Amino acid sequence: MGYKVAPLARLIEQFERMPGIGKKSAQRIAFHVLGMSEKDAKNFAQCIIDAHEKIHRCSVCGDLTDSDLCPICASITRDKSLVCVVENPADVLAFERTREFKGTYHVLHGAISPINGIGPDELNVKSLISRVAAGDIKEVIMATDPTVEGEATAMYLSKLIKPFGVTVSRLAYGVPVGGDLEYADEITLQRAIEGRQIL
Amino acid sequence: MGYKVAPLARLIEQFERMPGIGKKSAQRIAFHVLGMSEKDAKNFAQCIIDAHEKIHRCSVCGDLTDSDLCPICASITRDKSLVCVVENPADVLAFERTREFKGTYHVLHGAISPINGIGPDELNVKSLISRVAAGDIKEVIMATDPTVEGEATAMYLSKLIKPFGVTVSRLAYGVPVGGDLEYADEITLQRAIEGRQIL
Repeated sequence: MGYKVAPLARLIEQFERMPGIGKKSAQRIAFHVLGMSEKDAKNFAQCIIDAHEKIHRCSVCGDLTDSDLCPICASITRDKSLVCVVENPADVLAFERTREFKGTYHVLHGAISPINGIGPDELNVKSLISRVAAGDIKEVIMATDPTVEGEATAMYLSKLIKPFGVTVSRLAYGVPVGGDLEYADEITLQRAIEGRQIL
Repeated sequence: MGYKVAPLARLIEQFERMPGIGKKSAQRIAFHVLGMSEKDAKNFAQCIIDAHEKIHRCSVCGDLTDSDLCPICASITRDKSLVCVVENPADVLAFERTREFKGTYHVLHGAISPINGIGPDELNVKSLISRVAAGDIKEVIMATDPTVEGEATAMYLSKLIKPFGVTVSRLAYGVPVGGDLEYADEITLQRAIEGRQIL
């Protein structure tokens, strides 16, 4: 049974589409939004539009940013010779929470998945090869998800990168196999970085 | 650790404020919103603004609507002599899902709670008394939440309404005590309506 008031039904529908939100949660959230002050609701709507208009990919690593370079690529204290390759921006957040990793990242925005029609051309791969070819990188850590797609992506990229004489490593299996990398806890991720294996 | 990109951090913050959404869910939802097409994101933002601008309270029952009367009060097939008093618009939805109740509603928008400074004047009580005083109502069903505040509200309203010679009933304790009415299942709510007791 949908709500009969069209603007409210549409709002509930919007929240139902979000990951991890069911029908009743969507309804509860919609009522919460209705209960906001006029100013807060307008601010919320503006945040959505702002995020879309202002956020794009870092021209070096592909992570999300609102300037040309993301804060990590722009930082003078990060080790530019060490690159951690991840599938998603959320994975960068997960590694940053460990406060241990001092290198930079490269965000693929997905993993190779023939079954979903996603090949290397659909991912942020070309700019990774350009970075490696430029010659300043000593080691690339493959930190794709510990799934079939993530493993295949790591192996594929490893074969492309090794000819440049760059060390390619893979996260230690401290990360739980089959899980989603962005939900790993700080300690597990830290151990996984420390125990990385040369491929 | 917050995200360093301000527009994204602000968006995540907005979702963190929603009921039942934690930090990681908020982050996941924000990335989902970023992944929407430009058109879908603008539509989402517009839905929030529309809901706020177009939705107000029904002039009879206080439920949320985008016209003067809500669809239930405007319907010619609903029994106007039977009024079900609920705390929130979500409770109306819960009763409507039973498809059994053919009367109308009155939405209080809360319950009496001295500890939170909510008295009858903060609730949609005056218009309920006006409806009863108008003389067309035969029975008022108290369907406030089965909590201390809900019970107190039901008792208070019952004392105000009985002098008008109107039958006042209370939902049967088919609804789980201490729970939140909007999450009750259809069958439980239906039994509760059937077994209502004269106060």
